[in-house]
Amino acid sequence: MSERYVYSLKDGDGSNRLLLGGKGANLCTMKQNNLPVPPGFILTTEVCRKYMQDPKIMDEVWDDVKKAVADLEKDSGKGFNDAKNPLLVSVRSGAPISMPGMMETILNLGLNDTTLQGLIEASGNKRFALDSYRRFIQMFGSVVDEVNFDLFEEALAACRKSVNAQFDYQIPAEALEKLIVEYKAIYKKATGQDFPTDPWVQLRRAIEAVFKSWNIPRAITYRKINKIDDSLGTAVNVIAMIFGNLGDDCGTGVCFTRNPSTGENKLYGEFLINAQGEDVVAGIRTPMPISELEKAMPEIYKELCALTSQLEKAYHEMQDIEFTIERGKLFLLQTRAGKRTASAAVKVAADMVREGLIDKKTAVTRVAPEQVEQLLHRQVDPDSKQDVLAKGLPASPGAGAGMLVFSADEAEEWARAGKPTILARIETSPDDIHGLFASNGVVTSRGGMTSHAAVVARGMGKPAVCGCEAVEIDFDAETLTVGDRVFKKGDWVTVDGTSGTFLAGQAKMVDATFTDDFKQILSWADENAEQMVWANADTPEDAKRARDFGAKGVGLCRTEHMFMGVDRLPVMQRLVVALSNDASGFEERTEALAKLKVMQKEDFLGIFKAMEGLPVIIRLLDPPLHEFLPKEPNVLEALKTVAKGSAEEKHLNATLEKIHQLHENNPMLGFRGCRLGMIYPEIYEMQMNAIFEAVAELTKAGLVIKPEVMIPLVGTKPEMKFFREMADRIAAEVKKSTGVEFNYLVGTMIEVPRAALVADQLAEYAQFFSCGTNDLTQTTFGYSRDDAENKFLFQYVDKGVFKENPFAVLDRDGVGALVRNAVEKGRSVNPKLSVGICGEHGGNPESIAFCHSVKLNYVSCSPYRVPVARIAAAHAALGVLK
Amino acid sequence: MSERYVYSLKDGDGSNRLLLGGKGANLCTMKQNNLPVPPGFILTTEVCRKYMQDPKIMDEVWDDVKKAVADLEKDSGKGFNDAKNPLLVSVRSGAPISMPGMMETILNLGLNDTTLQGLIEASGNKRFALDSYRRFIQMFGSVVDEVNFDLFEEALAACRKSVNAQFDYQIPAEALEKLIVEYKAIYKKATGQDFPTDPWVQLRRAIEAVFKSWNIPRAITYRKINKIDDSLGTAVNVIAMIFGNLGDDCGTGVCFTRNPSTGENKLYGEFLINAQGEDVVAGIRTPMPISELEKAMPEIYKELCALTSQLEKAYHEMQDIEFTIERGKLFLLQTRAGKRTASAAVKVAADMVREGLIDKKTAVTRVAPEQVEQLLHRQVDPDSKQDVLAKGLPASPGAGAGMLVFSADEAEEWARAGKPTILARIETSPDDIHGLFASNGVVTSRGGMTSHAAVVARGMGKPAVCGCEAVEIDFDAETLTVGDRVFKKGDWVTVDGTSGTFLAGQAKMVDATFTDDFKQILSWADENAEQMVWANADTPEDAKRARDFGAKGVGLCRTEHMFMGVDRLPVMQRLVVALSNDASGFEERTEALAKLKVMQKEDFLGIFKAMEGLPVIIRLLDPPLHEFLPKEPNVLEALKTVAKGSAEEKHLNATLEKIHQLHENNPMLGFRGCRLGMIYPEIYEMQMNAIFEAVAELTKAGLVIKPEVMIPLVGTKPEMKFFREMADRIAAEVKKSTGVEFNYLVGTMIEVPRAALVADQLAEYAQFFSCGTNDLTQTTFGYSRDDAENKFLFQYVDKGVFKENPFAVLDRDGVGALVRNAVEKGRSVNPKLSVGICGEHGGNPESIAFCHSVKLNYVSCSPYRVPVARIAAAHAALGVLK
Repeated sequence: MSERYVYSLKDGDGSNRLLLGGKGANLCTMKQNNLPVPPGFILTTEVCRKYMQDPKIMDEVWDDVKKAVADLEKDSGKGFNDAKNPLLVSVRSGAPISMPGMMETILNLGLNDTTLQGLIEASGNKRFALDSYRRFIQMFGSVVDEVNFDLFEEALAACRKSVNAQFDYQIPAEALEKLIVEYKAIYKKATGQDFPTDPWVQLRRAIEAVFKSWNIPRAITYRKINKIDDSLGTAVNVIAMIFGNLGDDCGTGVCFTRNPSTGENKLYGEFLINAQGEDVVAGIRTPMPISELEKAMPEIYKELCALTSQLEKAYHEMQDIEFTIERGKLFLLQTRAGKRTASAAVKVAADMVREGLIDKKTAVTRVAPEQVEQLLHRQVDPDSKQDVLAKGLPASPGAGAGMLVFSADEAEEWARAGKPTILARIETSPDDIHGLFASNGVVTSRGGMTSHAAVVARGMGKPAVCGCEAVEIDFDAETLTVGDRVFKKGDWVTVDGTSGTFLAGQAKMVDATFTDDFKQILSWADENAEQMVWANADTPEDAKRARDFGAKGVGLCRTEHMFMGVDRLPVMQRLVVALSNDASGFEERTEALAKLKVMQKEDFLGIFKAMEGLPVIIRLLDPPLHEFLPKEPNVLEALKTVAKGSAEEKHLNATLEKIHQLHENNPMLGFRGCRLGMIYPEIYEMQMNAIFEAVAELTKAGLVIKPEVMIPLVGTKPEMKFFREMADRIAAEVKKSTGVEFNYLVGTMIEVPRAALVADQLAEYAQFFSCGTNDLTQTTFGYSRDDAENKFLFQYVDKGVFKENPFAVLDRDGVGALVRNAVEKGRSVNPKLSVGICGEHGGNPESIAFCHSVKLNYVSCSPYRVPVARIAAAHAALGVLK
Repeated sequence: MSERYVYSLKDGDGSNRLLLGGKGANLCTMKQNNLPVPPGFILTTEVCRKYMQDPKIMDEVWDDVKKAVADLEKDSGKGFNDAKNPLLVSVRSGAPISMPGMMETILNLGLNDTTLQGLIEASGNKRFALDSYRRFIQMFGSVVDEVNFDLFEEALAACRKSVNAQFDYQIPAEALEKLIVEYKAIYKKATGQDFPTDPWVQLRRAIEAVFKSWNIPRAITYRKINKIDDSLGTAVNVIAMIFGNLGDDCGTGVCFTRNPSTGENKLYGEFLINAQGEDVVAGIRTPMPISELEKAMPEIYKELCALTSQLEKAYHEMQDIEFTIERGKLFLLQTRAGKRTASAAVKVAADMVREGLIDKKTAVTRVAPEQVEQLLHRQVDPDSKQDVLAKGLPASPGAGAGMLVFSADEAEEWARAGKPTILARIETSPDDIHGLFASNGVVTSRGGMTSHAAVVARGMGKPAVCGCEAVEIDFDAETLTVGDRVFKKGDWVTVDGTSGTFLAGQAKMVDATFTDDFKQILSWADENAEQMVWANADTPEDAKRARDFGAKGVGLCRTEHMFMGVDRLPVMQRLVVALSNDASGFEERTEALAKLKVMQKEDFLGIFKAMEGLPVIIRLLDPPLHEFLPKEPNVLEALKTVAKGSAEEKHLNATLEKIHQLHENNPMLGFRGCRLGMIYPEIYEMQMNAIFEAVAELTKAGLVIKPEVMIPLVGTKPEMKFFREMADRIAAEVKKSTGVEFNYLVGTMIEVPRAALVADQLAEYAQFFSCGTNDLTQTTFGYSRDDAENKFLFQYVDKGVFKENPFAVLDRDGVGALVRNAVEKGRSVNPKLSVGICGEHGGNPESIAFCHSVKLNYVSCSPYRVPVARIAAAHAALGVLK
């Protein structure tokens, strides 16, 4: 069987990104659409996968590579290893899903002492040719043979010094000739070998190095963060070199068909005259805005505009394009869907619908749920007093505050310890990616809008201020200095990536506002979603915010927080102390319950009003009662100050006794939830009375109220039966006493495995289920979240026991199986049973996709995550999120 | 539709106990076999069930009752309400499953002022007739109309006093006549009605009272303890009265076809001349042994022996028979399977096989698993010094020690608090049944071998000493006095029901020994069982005992206890303190691990030797590490005494830090089990090395060792894979270093819900599963057993949320569903996967039946429960336990 491993850009299938990689597939499409793309060929991802198993695949492939190079020679009119007019190539990675900057690249391949002469002749530019050779040795040496990059850099710096040059391009040809000799010596010392002169050896080793770079740490980290399958492999693109640095009729640049920061429909990008592509990306020379190209090379600019517009129409998507101009001729080196900020994604999607480029469904899929989160990022309050330290480039919008750290490792470590950080670097490299991910924002003292820090931060939605030149960082001293102000590690600072400002301290923040485009996209999302998005809200303020963010109900209103207020806690404490199974304490608890009922009713009136017309699920008291009592040492302390024999002393002693009585070894699995309601029914009776009285009052006033009473921690049918009957009895009493008719539902949390296992039994009495996947995850795994995360769970994620922390992303095999069981068994008894989820997973896109797959009616999340969930629900229904 | 509600003894189907009740069905069989049974008829349990729904069913039934009474008149030659020769009847309950003494009975029904004269005439005994009438009014009044029984008793006492009589039978007729007038007045005062004179009214109201007595508290309690379905209902038997108290040619008694205490094949029982049945049972007059009947009434005795032998052959079962002799004629009033002690059950079953009455399978089913427990009860050490207080009747064998209590409620309360009790009563009544159940034994100062306390205690397998007349109990003072020795509530005493001795203090006990009959029954059980019985054993001694009791393997050998010894704990503490994720503490932990390995290997050598040839499952370290550390206050105390800067101070400070580091909010769900092994692999590696080295050493010595390494708390496939690979690697190393080949298995506990849910994934690497249903119950319900039982779980059982505490009897719907899932999914990947259970449920008969139903390979329980489990496993396979 002879599979095809090598494709020319002329005949590769542009739709097969999985085989050819994203970059290669795009080049094929461009080439076959007669766009000005340099000639080249692709080794498929299949070769990479096989290479990982057994490197001998290269022997099998090599004949095809030779044929492809011969074809390249024909198309370019140059010869590989030709002493007169040498063909030089670039060897680049190209994964099915873009991993910018994560893998290796080698340029100028094919140079040796012989072809160097040819290049000098052909280019008529000796300095250029020598510099290309010097770069090639440095790149090949460090990438292919892992020669320490710094050794080359030190030699280069010494060379600069010897000729008194400030920049590399000021080094004269003679010095470069010497430098090349030094580079070869460095290579030989490090490897024990001469630098390879045979271009075929160079090519083969470069291809292998790119394959291997699929598995270097930064690439693995990037895939982990971006959830890219490790088994895909990368293609290798071998493309004839185009030189943007042969003179002033040359240049190079990158551009986006629209503004990737704002979404504005206008060509956006940067370019450099007489430069190679890496000069733009590396941020060493400060590039010019693309608009300047119109003045510098009007014809080229016109051609570029036409081409980019053509590309966007072909792809129905905003493009990110790399181009090079060689001796007045424009080449496109790459095009791909452009990474953009969340606000740009929203504007581009909405604009494209209006421009007729895409339909509404596609528009919805163009905004990732994770991006929506960025739109909800708070901004620095413009009206607040700001302690501005420095201005830089607004490299990635949003604002973040945190404590200063100077290394990516530290940012990650501190984040795990729950400490928010801002990462400060001179410039970032692909090796810093985990630190960017872990921090609340990044500030760099060097680099432009397309520098590494800027690109990555935008992709992640992290605020970034780049090129903040007033900032000086001393890594040894771990200080950041601006003028005479010195900041140490751990000091609070704020990054405002929207305005490009770097501030001292924790700046005051304000909520983001939604643009009309965003509202539009969200409404298209709702049209396409199959599950509703509700919110978890304990207060009228939260409920209102959730409603503003588009929540269609309150999926979880916790009542325990209502007892924590300063006016309420003492009453609750008196109740708890007076609880007993006999007549003792009857008077005290009756009195406390009466007071609490009045307060609870007020709470419910507020929430119901805020959600008028929409369902509100109220969960009855859940936490163990000891949480309402003071701590033992405090009581002992207080006892010292009260008068002997006083009522207060008696109460404190009773409190002490109750603290001991309620002590538990594993409170998470103890006397809480409906177990309290079974043993002390008066608490739930009070809550139900307060709920139904509030409903009756508002109903009488003409409001439409949809209350749902939720019983926590139910695990058995008799519990559910008991509370359903209690609710029905109390509702009937309230209806009778108020003369008001109203509707209500009674349901249960599904938060212990048994509830899911006997869901059919519960559904005989429960009118709805709400899956409390936080607790369900704890009990299904046998993990106490508080205890597990720092003791072993984060390490489990590192060791690959889990892809994701199961408290962040719902565990489908275990917890998910129980949720599925609950839905299926519950609906087998009551086909119309409403089932939702109210754990933190309700705001997590992957988990929402799972909820869609098991046909939940709604997901309920925190108000701020409602827009994220709305997009995720639509993506799940549209099949783009699974 | 006209269902049949009333059956004559002549035509009822004796096999339909569900419809006719046990007593009625037996009477039918006896009647239809021409045994001397008085005429009578039965109202079915169906009537009772309908009566509970709607008492109007009585109207529907009444015609049939009238017809049946007419038939009775014909058969008896007497007339209902006949002034000359009146027909009197007894109205008794008769449940499908015997509930002796729990429901109501009314005798002598049909008497009024008119029929009284007829009875005087027919019996020729005015005193007897008046006494019957007096008893009837008292019984009917208190049972049917709930007139306070004590009011009648007070009048009776006053009457005795007025005629200077010590016993009731000494009261002359004239006084009885006056007493009857008084009784009628008491009745009228209490009910506002005259005592009903119409026998038809009496009959109807009596029948209804018996139906209602199905739901009196003591009956409900009895059903709960004996797990009898509340919905069965009782039949009512209406039988012509036979009088054993017409003179000295009359009498009454109860007898067993074999000795219910020892099983000896010899008629056993008691009788009274000139008495009614209740006189025997109530323990008021001391009855004579049945052997005396031979002298008193030789013909009757002969007839009785022939009849009882006939009954046993007909039923293939030992019988418990009530008889009455009226004027020299023997009547059988009831026969049923006789309740017996465990040792009697064993002997009777084994004897009956030898006698050819039953086969081996039936013999196995004749010994209940709960009874086996009694055979394992310890006895008072005959060689120890005993502080004997009093001798009584050996009413129920076995010995128990506990703290004195004087009420059933208190016995129950103390038992819940974990305090063992001995219940002391003058005599017990059906209302004391919950106290008998809760105590370790009972002592009464009155009553014979068939008194209430004796019968119930034998049924429950509780030690009992009855009729201990030297004992005086003062309920008010809560003291028990024997001679001049006074015992207070809470004092320790011992009941030796085997010898009938009541002792002061906690007597020294010895293990029970197995009789040959018992060994025989157990071996027949094994022949019929489909699952093996293994044992949980942590020490060679336990393992040996388990093997002696018939265990076929060790299902759980916990290794943590091995670290708790005085020589080991300090080493373990040093290890725990030195554990870290980096190089720090490396030396200390290496040293500690080396020491521990030597000790562990010794442990394993011992267990393996004790179980040579049989499998031994060793569970690696499970509990959270903080359990090995001293308590914080102790460390703080110790710190005060050590020298500043000493190594000891350093260690104590490190210990303190580790205590804080390891603190957990919910240790049950925390850093334990294989999570320790993942983060600190060195511990499990040490244990595996110790196991395999011990195996190699013994294998080399020619022993057959079958080690199985069990990983605790696995919840994910990567965990299982990690430890399987670790075990395989270490086993290979040991094989190589020792040059010894050996076999082993690696498996996992199934003790968190997720393990059961992803059992198919685990079975890829696990070679066996052991369901740890203690923890699985905790996580499935979300109950911390320590916290739940006293806080709400016992109350849940009282409230009927559970029939049984799910930690005692496996919850089939929840935990059971997970076990079933684990078995099915595990075997879907590995059809030969061995699955067992090692929670406490492994020794519980009902749970064992469930394990049988899901096809577990074995159950593992504590050594002392192995014989119970062997019988239960056989009962499950034979279908008598479900």
